[in-house]
Amino acid sequence: MRQSQLFTRTRRDAPKDEEAKNAQLLIRAGFVHKEMAGVYTYLPLGLRVLNNIVQIIREEMNAIGGQEMVLTALQDKKLWEKTDRWDDKKVDNWFKTEFKSGGETGLGITHEEPITRVMSEHIASYRDLPVYAYQFQNKFRNELRAKSGIMRGKEFLMKDLYSFAKNEEEHQVFFEKAREAYKTVFARMGIGDRTYVTFASGGMFSAFSEEFQTVSDAGEDTIFVDEEKKIAVNKEVLTDENLATLGLERGNLVEKKSIEAGNIFTLGTRFSEPLGLTYMAEDGTKQPVVMGSYGIGPTRLMGIIAELFSDEKGLVWPEAVAPFQYHLVSLAGTDAGITSIADELYAELTLKGISVLYDDRDARAGEKFADSDLMGMPYRIVVGRDALATGEYELVHRATGEVSKVSKEDILKR
Amino acid sequence: MRQSQLFTRTRRDAPKDEEAKNAQLLIRAGFVHKEMAGVYTYLPLGLRVLNNIVQIIREEMNAIGGQEMVLTALQDKKLWEKTDRWDDKKVDNWFKTEFKSGGETGLGITHEEPITRVMSEHIASYRDLPVYAYQFQNKFRNELRAKSGIMRGKEFLMKDLYSFAKNEEEHQVFFEKAREAYKTVFARMGIGDRTYVTFASGGMFSAFSEEFQTVSDAGEDTIFVDEEKKIAVNKEVLTDENLATLGLERGNLVEKKSIEAGNIFTLGTRFSEPLGLTYMAEDGTKQPVVMGSYGIGPTRLMGIIAELFSDEKGLVWPEAVAPFQYHLVSLAGTDAGITSIADELYAELTLKGISVLYDDRDARAGEKFADSDLMGMPYRIVVGRDALATGEYELVHRATGEVSKVSKEDILKR
Repeated sequence: MRQSQLFTRTRRDAPKDEEAKNAQLLIRAGFVHKEMAGVYTYLPLGLRVLNNIVQIIREEMNAIGGQEMVLTALQDKKLWEKTDRWDDKKVDNWFKTEFKSGGETGLGITHEEPITRVMSEHIASYRDLPVYAYQFQNKFRNELRAKSGIMRGKEFLMKDLYSFAKNEEEHQVFFEKAREAYKTVFARMGIGDRTYVTFASGGMFSAFSEEFQTVSDAGEDTIFVDEEKKIAVNKEVLTDENLATLGLERGNLVEKKSIEAGNIFTLGTRFSEPLGLTYMAEDGTKQPVVMGSYGIGPTRLMGIIAELFSDEKGLVWPEAVAPFQYHLVSLAGTDAGITSIADELYAELTLKGISVLYDDRDARAGEKFADSDLMGMPYRIVVGRDALATGEYELVHRATGEVSKVSKEDILKR
Repeated sequence: MRQSQLFTRTRRDAPKDEEAKNAQLLIRAGFVHKEMAGVYTYLPLGLRVLNNIVQIIREEMNAIGGQEMVLTALQDKKLWEKTDRWDDKKVDNWFKTEFKSGGETGLGITHEEPITRVMSEHIASYRDLPVYAYQFQNKFRNELRAKSGIMRGKEFLMKDLYSFAKNEEEHQVFFEKAREAYKTVFARMGIGDRTYVTFASGGMFSAFSEEFQTVSDAGEDTIFVDEEKKIAVNKEVLTDENLATLGLERGNLVEKKSIEAGNIFTLGTRFSEPLGLTYMAEDGTKQPVVMGSYGIGPTRLMGIIAELFSDEKGLVWPEAVAPFQYHLVSLAGTDAGITSIADELYAELTLKGISVLYDDRDARAGEKFADSDLMGMPYRIVVGRDALATGEYELVHRATGEVSKVSKEDILKR
């Protein structure tokens, strides 16, 4: 895309009320707009990053048999009353509102209840199980504090997958597949090496739930990491008894700040029982379905990546999620010769399906480089007087600052 | 996809409280689930249709220079007060709720206000104009009545594009491009011949707005069509004066029921003035930006298509939006030979990138054909004993019922 056509502009300063580094950088670079505390608009560049993240997650969820669907934001009160999660005393972060046609509704904080009802219309027999369904959808959580930028929104995108199994064994098989799929997701986004399977409080149906905690100073959580075993324990379950169960020793654990990038839960029959999701077993008896839930927030992940992959000059996108792979910066000014080779290179790269942001603006080199550093595409190609003379372009690797001279053929070959 | 893996089941009857044909069929075929009145979940097959519709619209919006972004559902009250659209007496279909952190918010009924504010941070000079930005996002409208299935939801998907121009002339150039893009969208979905540019009430800044009305008995609108000129007038503006302005004669108009599939509006400075969206003109003066808005509801379109392309047996999807192009129905039963050729055909078609729903279930032929008719893929390929003997498959065109015998090569060539 030609940058002269892109409507967003970079800015020197983030809004004064924006405390989080991720949002400060994303706002300054024109990737997001802060609508209100914890409520962000995704501008064209930001949406491209978000879509790349979504697509990686989608591929991995499809690979383990997930079927994509979309549930609703508006929630049916009577469904949540059946599971005792409607009352504000039980769940304190609902946004509630009223239908003009009568009755109360709320905005989906999560979707166990509605998906369980949907499944009760489609699952009848053991032959119908197991089933895995997921969605990408906005969740709404009425948070009192929202100071972590897009890492903790009042409105945010979530991928939530729900599993439905005949019994605990069948559930466990998928639970382990999901854990591996999550590891693949985080590895593909470049945060695999700092993201730990972390044991956290479980609930009624399992001793622990498993969180995926990414080590970051911007995190709100505290975890204790066993570097050798590559697993961690959330502070909330750090007891001698739990450590013994997990085979961990206190002496091997290092305390770190972290942010939860995802989680996987065994739900057992917590939702299927009150909502009547049962199936006819092979022996003719009626049995409750055994469920699990598996969450990753793509907007939060984008925030985590912005926190971790950035420096004093700006964002440094990993290739897997970058809005464009190349930032083609033309220093043509009014030089028709330079413009012509820059235009040509842009056309050829685009034709090859390579994603390029082409800075064809009439602006000073210093401004263009500062913008380019702030926006953080993985590679910058500079087209200036040199290129016209030698046919070689300067290629700058944003992450390392490494500069090399390359020919057009080198770039097309990469 | 293998139908044995698809979690949705067809059902004989729609819910008793569902009055609209589109939703009745879509629910029976397992494409959508009714959560509450006017609130629908999109199940895997339904989401595939919706995504096809979205992609067609996206391509046409990109083709006229639209830049995709995503605004928020939660709205900033103070912004809507500035344009006098917050008060329930002025706008009667808000869902409103409160932040736990203090203050009121509402769910986006439309997005002129927030996009205008976003643009005020990025547009400063005449050099920054024109700009076209759009999104696909859920709108929330607190409708008293919601009896048209997915054609009128309380929560529904909308594509809304907003244009920002220096002046009325620049606006008009884009307005006409948008009109043509809309015609292309409706033509690609197979409803072009029954969708009319319809003059409707305008507002402060133009004599008329333009609606795209699709003729349908399920419609809630009444329009008067000039078949020769291929344009129509909405009942609300059917006056002698307006007809004269439009060069239409009452005698040439035919009254029809219709449903609004889209609309394009000239907004003038209705939003830019109160929200301070101005630019520095070439002559150094500060000028308000001239805006337009352009809406199409993909979920509504899906409903319109379901209404128009269906018969007593079920849905009849146009190829452009069908969830799968082929429904491969195996009548193998326990016959390993038939299973083997059906499996092979499925694998080859899939490998070629052709989308196929493969009914590999162990079920009676009658049940499979009834399901296939209800679900409405454009073509059905039947693999039974005949195919095993002759190497020829029965190909049934859902829309016409036309049956032909084809070889595997014929299908791969199509």
